[in-house]
Amino acid sequence: MKKDLVAVVLAGGEGKRFWPITTDKNLFPFFGKTFFEHAIAHSLPKEVSRVVVVANEDNAPFFQSFTFSVPHDVVTQKSAKGMSDAVLAASAKLQGASLLIVIADVLEDGSVFRRIVKRGLSERVFGVIAGWKPDTYYPGGYLALKGSKILGIHEKPGQGNEPSQYVNVSGHFIAHAGKLVAAIRGTRSDADDLYEKAVTSLMQSEEFVLEPYDGPVTSLKYPWHVLDVMDVLLKDISSHQGKNLEIRNNVVIEGNVTFGDNVKVFENTKIVGPCYIGENTIIGNNNIVRHSHIGAGCVTGFNTDITRSYIGDNCWFHSNYIGDSVIEEDVSMGSGTVCANLRLDRGEIASAIGDNRMNTRRTKLGALIGKNVRIGVNTSFMPGVRIGSNSMVGAGLVVSRDISDASKKLL
Amino acid sequence: MKKDLVAVVLAGGEGKRFWPITTDKNLFPFFGKTFFEHAIAHSLPKEVSRVVVVANEDNAPFFQSFTFSVPHDVVTQKSAKGMSDAVLAASAKLQGASLLIVIADVLEDGSVFRRIVKRGLSERVFGVIAGWKPDTYYPGGYLALKGSKILGIHEKPGQGNEPSQYVNVSGHFIAHAGKLVAAIRGTRSDADDLYEKAVTSLMQSEEFVLEPYDGPVTSLKYPWHVLDVMDVLLKDISSHQGKNLEIRNNVVIEGNVTFGDNVKVFENTKIVGPCYIGENTIIGNNNIVRHSHIGAGCVTGFNTDITRSYIGDNCWFHSNYIGDSVIEEDVSMGSGTVCANLRLDRGEIASAIGDNRMNTRRTKLGALIGKNVRIGVNTSFMPGVRIGSNSMVGAGLVVSRDISDASKKLL
Amino acid sequence: MKKDLVAVVLAGGEGKRFWPITTDKNLFPFFGKTFFEHAIAHSLPKEVSRVVVVANEDNAPFFQSFTFSVPHDVVTQKSAKGMSDAVLAASAKLQGASLLIVIADVLEDGSVFRRIVKRGLSERVFGVIAGWKPDTYYPGGYLALKGSKILGIHEKPGQGNEPSQYVNVSGHFIAHAGKLVAAIRGTRSDADDLYEKAVTSLMQSEEFVLEPYDGPVTSLKYPWHVLDVMDVLLKDISSHQGKNLEIRNNVVIEGNVTFGDNVKVFENTKIVGPCYIGENTIIGNNNIVRHSHIGAGCVTGFNTDITRSYIGDNCWFHSNYIGDSVIEEDVSMGSGTVCANLRLDRGEIASAIGDNRMNTRRTKLGALIGKNVRIGVNTSFMPGVRIGSNSMVGAGLVVSRDISDASKKLL
Repeated sequence: MKKDLVAVVLAGGEGKRFWPITTDKNLFPFFGKTFFEHAIAHSLPKEVSRVVVVANEDNAPFFQSFTFSVPHDVVTQKSAKGMSDAVLAASAKLQGASLLIVIADVLEDGSVFRRIVKRGLSERVFGVIAGWKPDTYYPGGYLALKGSKILGIHEKPGQGNEPSQYVNVSGHFIAHAGKLVAAIRGTRSDADDLYEKAVTSLMQSEEFVLEPYDGPVTSLKYPWHVLDVMDVLLKDISSHQGKNLEIRNNVVIEGNVTFGDNVKVFENTKIVGPCYIGENTIIGNNNIVRHSHIGAGCVTGFNTDITRSYIGDNCWFHSNYIGDSVIEEDVSMGSGTVCANLRLDRGEIASAIGDNRMNTRRTKLGALIGKNVRIGVNTSFMPGVRIGSNSMVGAGLVVSRDISDASKKLL
Repeated sequence: MKKDLVAVVLAGGEGKRFWPITTDKNLFPFFGKTFFEHAIAHSLPKEVSRVVVVANEDNAPFFQSFTFSVPHDVVTQKSAKGMSDAVLAASAKLQGASLLIVIADVLEDGSVFRRIVKRGLSERVFGVIAGWKPDTYYPGGYLALKGSKILGIHEKPGQGNEPSQYVNVSGHFIAHAGKLVAAIRGTRSDADDLYEKAVTSLMQSEEFVLEPYDGPVTSLKYPWHVLDVMDVLLKDISSHQGKNLEIRNNVVIEGNVTFGDNVKVFENTKIVGPCYIGENTIIGNNNIVRHSHIGAGCVTGFNTDITRSYIGDNCWFHSNYIGDSVIEEDVSMGSGTVCANLRLDRGEIASAIGDNRMNTRRTKLGALIGKNVRIGVNTSFMPGVRIGSNSMVGAGLVVSRDISDASKKLL
Repeated sequence: MKKDLVAVVLAGGEGKRFWPITTDKNLFPFFGKTFFEHAIAHSLPKEVSRVVVVANEDNAPFFQSFTFSVPHDVVTQKSAKGMSDAVLAASAKLQGASLLIVIADVLEDGSVFRRIVKRGLSERVFGVIAGWKPDTYYPGGYLALKGSKILGIHEKPGQGNEPSQYVNVSGHFIAHAGKLVAAIRGTRSDADDLYEKAVTSLMQSEEFVLEPYDGPVTSLKYPWHVLDVMDVLLKDISSHQGKNLEIRNNVVIEGNVTFGDNVKVFENTKIVGPCYIGENTIIGNNNIVRHSHIGAGCVTGFNTDITRSYIGDNCWFHSNYIGDSVIEEDVSMGSGTVCANLRLDRGEIASAIGDNRMNTRRTKLGALIGKNVRIGVNTSFMPGVRIGSNSMVGAGLVVSRDISDASKKLL
């Protein structure tokens, strides 16, 4: 009898660092579909016979009602305690199966999952792990290698101490779930790396091999990662015109642009693809839109510039500049309001995370704005500021510090 | 011998509540003509054989030199003391006549005056009064009715106590001036309602009938009423091109737009009717103008958005947003200055009148700006603020409170 | 043997009053060439057999390597001590020659130099001086005349005391250098007018005649003079298209515009000549550019208005209004930033020079910005402010006072 191959989808993580965005990362919409569909759902290899999603209490209902092409179960982690805890939470559903373990909020080229599974099944090795070569030191698990054989995972070894160039990323094939579960149960760690330690101990007795991966690796950890994911997804966007598309006089469209149904584009506007324009959205007169995602039901008004930005549904603009920004949904912005996207010294932009300033490693980053925010006229957002949902931000402000949820900030 | 029919035009009211607009309400210009011409002068029934205008000291010269199609007299009220005082002021000119009494600063469909007169003359009743059904409680005089017979006028009865759905509006036919004058002289009241009380007392002996009216009723009491009047008048505007109209390349004109002589419209501009553009006005490049009145001799500059606004003569703009605003005349605005027209909470907009905030009942209202005001760059006017004439308003301000006449306000 | 005719080019002046511009006045670029080339180099009469440049230590290397059509020497003034000192500094190179003395930072129609030389040589007079009739009192040296004979130069005589209508401007022919040098050595003055006194003393024994000049006289004394010089030079600009010029859809070009190589002009933009657009510059979408100089390697971004302004190389704009402004080079401006160019009272604009406010005599003047300045979004520059080089100017500011070099100014 053919052995069960279970895709274990780890989707129980918390989203605190994703603030001011409050949508669950897996459900965050791109092109009218959830991130989960882009990252995982349509990328599972055909050999997968069953899916087990490890969810949290908030997103479990979504996964329960989601339609996979194969049967699926949802188990819920009470709190997000890392990969090892997630595998244990799912263990009752994994007995006797082989596993493809994937992390839900990481976007990789789905072909890597197919290569891992194919190799695990054909070469009859115990484990296959996707290994990725970052350009600079990456605070993850580095693979100790002997040829293509993996000897261990060194979690955050520190720059200069990497055992190889390869980092362990989403996509692990494990031939026998029971052995992995036992290894996890037999391992102790005070740190976050219990899973990696358990796998490393398994490597003493079982053969693990490296499957090199050189595609993009992007995850939705911080809000500006929405732009990274958008960049990857926009690469594949096609030129498409929805029903009732209305393009007025003297509109220039370059590159690939997907228009949803009932979109209107008014006079003297230029759209430079790749872009996505959601259904029922109105792009006003004398606009420029470049390399951006604009959700459904938006109105961009007169004379707006949207460049390299993610705009969710139902946003209203008017003579704004929105560059390198993430605007979740239901946001309105008064005339003349600008999201600055460059530091005056051209340096890398920090964003305050908790009490700390965190370097985003981006030299271009605009504002990060949650849901249902009302913004007045002639206001200036400094690069990297985050605006909490349900807030009001008055006119004529220079906003250089984060604004918490449900705030009212006036001059 | 045919009896004289005298149109009594009550034009003596004061305009304090019209501030910051200082032009007399009756003389306020729309489409290059005074409000009086739109509201009254061209609406008088052909049966009218003479006109008596009750003016105040300021507007009397205008009415004296105005050319009606029939003879006219002007009498002057020393101070505005209500309709009864106005009728008494005119009484020497009314002897033996029938009357059509109209209030000069109220705009109704002129056909109602013709219907009232026709009915008064043909049915040989003593009085005919135009009755209008407001959508919500209206602080005016409600008509007590028995069928179409009017039994009395109940001034401001309070919501729930209305004697009928009909409110007494401009347009009263009175068959015998002398009896009205006698009734006024015989009535005493401490309040504003002496005229209504006198008419009510007349109704005990004379027959008054209702002439229902279901058209618009707009008056120029508060400055934002200019927008209401403009809306009514724009409904009838036609598509007209004055002499020497110059329309540059890639201009889009939709709907009915009346262009005065010597107007120029520069490239990449869109005008969405109904609109009026006065003579010698220049609409600059890359503008959008929608549902607005722009006076003579204006220059809108580059990249200006004028939407649902009244602009008087000789105004200069440059990269502005002017929405739902009233700008009297001789106003200049620096680049980037914006009239915000929505509250962040989308609520109804209050405007301070005297010491009180008054709810304008509008959810969209921009700035209200008097004559001869100079405004700097990048300034933001909050919804409903009023700017007194002969003022200077500096750059980079957020103007959330009224500015009195002849002020200089800098950061 | 034909006598040497030496053009003495006085280029040793300091540029303190030219601040915030730090480029040497003579080297200040227009149309990709130095001011010196426009003002002097191509205007020297063919009779000139040699050039002696009196430079300062900073600009001497430029003049040393400059290629004239005749041999040249460069002498250096230690400090700028006026024309007399400059002539003395050059005296060793002038022996036995006739002289054409010109001031390097004054732009006149070059034909005046040819007329002066021709007259000096043909009429065999000792001196010929160009005389110019200013419209109003001019704080310079007025010529005392008898017919066309010059009796003396009265330095700053005070309004009402002018000996004639003619002012001494750049362009003096002197038949014998030695006599001039001797006169200077024999004259004493505590003031700046030693040269004029020396020449006046020479006039007692030698014949000097007036050569009337009615063309423009503009010099680069103050930074706003860049606009005056630009105006003069733009008059002669031709319609020229450099290599690889790329003009997108719906671009309107009126008047004479010179485009350098590799210029791109994006959609819906209008350029109204006379204008100069330097090589590799990108004029963005929906711009308007009028009567301006834009250097090489600039990007004007979306929706920018540049009117009657000088922009140097490598400047970046985005939705700005730049009117009547001078921007040296390497300046970037955030979206929505505006250079106001009119006082609210429409008066003449003062600029602070040292501790004093100086009336520029201009009613339209924007900002004066040095090299390498970074400017944030939605900032407002008041008319006539000067911004020192290497500064950072933050977002949302109203800049009404000068900012010194290498400053960081934030809200």
